[in-house]
Amino acid sequence: MFEQLPTFQKLLRQLQQLPYLASKNIYKVAFYFLNSDRKKVEQFCQVLLDVKDRIGRCHHCFNLTEGESLCSICRDEKRNKKIICVVENWYDLFAIEKAGGYDGVYHVLGGVLSPLEGIGENDLNLYSLFKRISNLDIEELILATNATPEGEATASFIYSKLEHLRDRFKITRLASGVPIGSSLEYMDKVTIYKAISGRQPF
Amino acid sequence: MFEQLPTFQKLLRQLQQLPYLASKNIYKVAFYFLNSDRKKVEQFCQVLLDVKDRIGRCHHCFNLTEGESLCSICRDEKRNKKIICVVENWYDLFAIEKAGGYDGVYHVLGGVLSPLEGIGENDLNLYSLFKRISNLDIEELILATNATPEGEATASFIYSKLEHLRDRFKITRLASGVPIGSSLEYMDKVTIYKAISGRQPF
Repeated sequence: MFEQLPTFQKLLRQLQQLPYLASKNIYKVAFYFLNSDRKKVEQFCQVLLDVKDRIGRCHHCFNLTEGESLCSICRDEKRNKKIICVVENWYDLFAIEKAGGYDGVYHVLGGVLSPLEGIGENDLNLYSLFKRISNLDIEELILATNATPEGEATASFIYSKLEHLRDRFKITRLASGVPIGSSLEYMDKVTIYKAISGRQPF
Repeated sequence: MFEQLPTFQKLLRQLQQLPYLASKNIYKVAFYFLNSDRKKVEQFCQVLLDVKDRIGRCHHCFNLTEGESLCSICRDEKRNKKIICVVENWYDLFAIEKAGGYDGVYHVLGGVLSPLEGIGENDLNLYSLFKRISNLDIEELILATNATPEGEATASFIYSKLEHLRDRFKITRLASGVPIGSSLEYMDKVTIYKAISGRQPF
């Protein structure tokens, strides 16, 4: 029955491209826009375009920034510029910031190495990281890519490129183990193995 | 850290209003728009506004229609205009159409009665239904609201208003029972009760 509603069909096709929107829910989102005032939809569109125009990437760390060439973290004089935490994406950075307890700076890779998806080393902000490290006097590099196969591979790749500098600064990885609030019973073997082998003094 | 990104914050707030988008995924959707070409975002906005401008409601049944005052189903001469199926929303209509096997017409209520949410009889397309029934010579009215408390209450309400016309046409309700592909073992008591009491000759 969509042949009779070409514009609506176009909207469904646009919504299909949004990540993390289940196909069953596309109709409800389309319905939401159909039932909203035109003014509200215009506002939504304006915000989308404003974001495209105003949000840029930090020249140092590729974090998001608005109206400045450096992001708020790189501009913050209280942050320790000698510790760099390498994350996959902006939302990983945000997750660490929300958790608190980290006062160093970041480097956002913009993804992970993934030969299957055709993402190679030149598609990530890797060489800017290496350049940044060679120019700065840093103390520690934290490889905080995710504990997925691609994340581990990307961390290994970065480590292999920087291994010869290990006497200049520490290279660390986030601790693996049992997440707070969960039971051993429900954990996979690899996590338990990591938790046992990485055990800490009480 | 969002204080430094007011435009981005605005986008997140807009996305929070979308139904069926988990709050954890809002960042990923925002990220999708940030990483898209400006042209693609413009296209998305244009489609949204086109939908607002071009998609209307059918004057008979309140189904979606584009460029015509009656929807494709009401205009279709092959459909049996003497059977009206009352559904809550447009996507319920679409679900029945996809399933096939129904050749009558529809009436879209635009929601269900829900005193808790302040949705009363005047907020739904109820009086247009009653008017439609009184003007037409119909054979059957199918109350196809969902099997939720609100859906049942809405069906009961419509039935109570039309009960006196029962000698003019049949009023039916969708069959309740065990969904195809599922096991009795996992069904709730009420469904099994309905399936037993509504049993059909083999």
